Amino acid sequence: MAEIFRKHLFNIPEGMIYLDGNSLGPMPRAVPARIADVLSDEWGAQLIKGWNGAGWMDQPSRVGRQVGRLIGAPEGTVVLGDTLSIKVYQAVAAAIKLRPGRKVILSDTGNFPTDLYMVEGLIKTLDQGYTLRTVAPEDVVGAMDDSVAAVMLTHVDYRTGRMHDMNAVTKAAQAAGAVMIWDLAHSAGAVPVDLEQSGAELAMGCTYKYLNGGPGAPAFIYVRADLADTVEPALSGWLGHRAPFDFALTYQPGAGIERMRVGTPPVLQMTALEVAMQAWEDVDMQMLRAASIALQEQFIAEVEARVPQLTLASPRDAAVRGSQVSFRFEHGYAAMQALIHDDVIGDFRAPDIMRFGFTPLYVNAADVTIAVDRLQRVMQDRLWDDPKFRTRNRVT
Amino acid sequence: MAEIFRKHLFNIPEGMIYLDGNSLGPMPRAVPARIADVLSDEWGAQLIKGWNGAGWMDQPSRVGRQVGRLIGAPEGTVVLGDTLSIKVYQAVAAAIKLRPGRKVILSDTGNFPTDLYMVEGLIKTLDQGYTLRTVAPEDVVGAMDDSVAAVMLTHVDYRTGRMHDMNAVTKAAQAAGAVMIWDLAHSAGAVPVDLEQSGAELAMGCTYKYLNGGPGAPAFIYVRADLADTVEPALSGWLGHRAPFDFALTYQPGAGIERMRVGTPPVLQMTALEVAMQAWEDVDMQMLRAASIALQEQFIAEVEARVPQLTLASPRDAAVRGSQVSFRFEHGYAAMQALIHDDVIGDFRAPDIMRFGFTPLYVNAADVTIAVDRLQRVMQDRLWDDPKFRTRNRVT
Repeated sequence: MAEIFRKHLFNIPEGMIYLDGNSLGPMPRAVPARIADVLSDEWGAQLIKGWNGAGWMDQPSRVGRQVGRLIGAPEGTVVLGDTLSIKVYQAVAAAIKLRPGRKVILSDTGNFPTDLYMVEGLIKTLDQGYTLRTVAPEDVVGAMDDSVAAVMLTHVDYRTGRMHDMNAVTKAAQAAGAVMIWDLAHSAGAVPVDLEQSGAELAMGCTYKYLNGGPGAPAFIYVRADLADTVEPALSGWLGHRAPFDFALTYQPGAGIERMRVGTPPVLQMTALEVAMQAWEDVDMQMLRAASIALQEQFIAEVEARVPQLTLASPRDAAVRGSQVSFRFEHGYAAMQALIHDDVIGDFRAPDIMRFGFTPLYVNAADVTIAVDRLQRVMQDRLWDDPKFRTRNRVT
Repeated sequence: MAEIFRKHLFNIPEGMIYLDGNSLGPMPRAVPARIADVLSDEWGAQLIKGWNGAGWMDQPSRVGRQVGRLIGAPEGTVVLGDTLSIKVYQAVAAAIKLRPGRKVILSDTGNFPTDLYMVEGLIKTLDQGYTLRTVAPEDVVGAMDDSVAAVMLTHVDYRTGRMHDMNAVTKAAQAAGAVMIWDLAHSAGAVPVDLEQSGAELAMGCTYKYLNGGPGAPAFIYVRADLADTVEPALSGWLGHRAPFDFALTYQPGAGIERMRVGTPPVLQMTALEVAMQAWEDVDMQMLRAASIALQEQFIAEVEARVPQLTLASPRDAAVRGSQVSFRFEHGYAAMQALIHDDVIGDFRAPDIMRFGFTPLYVNAADVTIAVDRLQRVMQDRLWDDPKFRTRNRVT
């Protein structure tokens, strides 16, 4: 069995404990050399010929296979491109066409805002009486009725780490006649996911968090195999056309998942991601999950023993928690700034959430203890009182 | 006055005559070092802190100012992101909301297919009786009636280089009560454009052609200043929100052009483009236009004198031609392959168009003569008969 911990593959500054891989993963050390090659040997030397000669055109599907392996998606069901927001729009627009007559898109208040915003924009653009119904996470199943065209949820809550039961919720949605759409932003590379087994129709996610694809790395979209030739692409761009280089005046959707491609793929970002995915080739997601839970349990135990000012905001039951742990603290923003100043990198989510991501590829038990040491010092010395930590900057 | 020709700034292999900058611009030599820095000093060293610390978050607007200068767009009216296909969707979706009751989107057969495809997808998704009316380029003005909500045209035809009269067509569209949308894919960095003077409401374009932003470089979108706070973003993503980091559950559009941002920007691609735009800082677009026309006129004259097998497909009048020249030839595909084999890089567009782009930043009169020498040899020796050049590959 391959060792899960492989920090040597990543560029993490000496002394830094990086607990923010749930926001932006660190750079795989193999990226710079590969990007330099793409610049000098591909764009620089092949210019336009790179599209075929260097394999740029097929990269979105090639990387789709790499990502698919981590989320239980068979070959030919995942393609990369655009941003997660765009992929949400594609998925929801496709889903509601599968359920004509039903006018509700159901989501929850734990969803990442852009998912809700994109649905709002779609609904407003459609102007056909669709509504977005947003309920508390625990009320989602109860809110499924025969008006619901699609249920669209983020599997793991970005603030609390609370994780939906993918199989059970999917089954309930489908029993209610709705299409199920999962956002895997905080799941891909974080927890085991078996999309095929879940039966969910559509899914999407980003690749710059746990997958370490780099800032602004492309998103992915999944369409269940039996629907891949059926879904109508609302964003019908030329690279989703059956024969883009025929330059026909009329759109014909491409075969299968290819139709979810839209425009010209971002080759530099795709390359960084393709390299990043190499670090995942021998990773067993069950082993990774066990390692992640061990780190989280250790963190919770140490914080609760040594930093009593903080209150656990994540589920205490590891089985319903993703790969992050959040604590509430009244002065959470300033406390997190002080902690970051001390080179333990987590982040803050309003109003009072201190968020810590656990990524066993490059975080181990010793790191957890050091992180809690430094957190304890921040709290004991009331460093969050320091005005320099209280000034608000944007935190992503 | 700064010299327009500045080939030393670009990476063009020794001996290659590159006449395909209208498809993918060559790599500016400054790109690799800057990208290496972003990898090592920003993503690699700052990790999540790069969003604010390295200015990634503001990059789409910063590069918008650089691009805006070349297309007559005042500060605060241009932002970068996504692909051109996505920007077409945003622009058309915004335009038709400005003209309720009108149900036609008017375009022409010279438009790049993805523009038409994206409108098809939008119309089908809306399912409200909208139609896409596509007429011959010369019939566009005559087809403007009071059913037309928006006129959406590519300024310079990707096949023939024929150029619409931006001011006249815009005036006609607005006189007919329609919103005017220009696709500047083959105009930005190719011909002088004054969006503000034209009065057009919306525009978009790509940056990997004449602007040399690299394969899959982000697109731009322009909204006329007086409408920037009015247009409704159909693709209402979190980074177009008024306060994205408040993580509110409800979308509020951002101020001005910022609302046309959607998801997380691709930092590596944005950086390559930002560096590429430095080569444009002292370029006078009128001087560039004069240089481009001189190259094109020389090319047409030399081809017609020495390569009679080819028939001019572009307008003979330089005033209505962009920065490319196309010729028809029955065996155009194979002839272009043979020419590319001889290191003169143009491209082919079905059914019979050999396309040559003229980019005075790195092509000069001596290059034109060498290109025609090699083209003459391809034709005299009937190299297009060689089976190795007749095998079809995808050409972008």
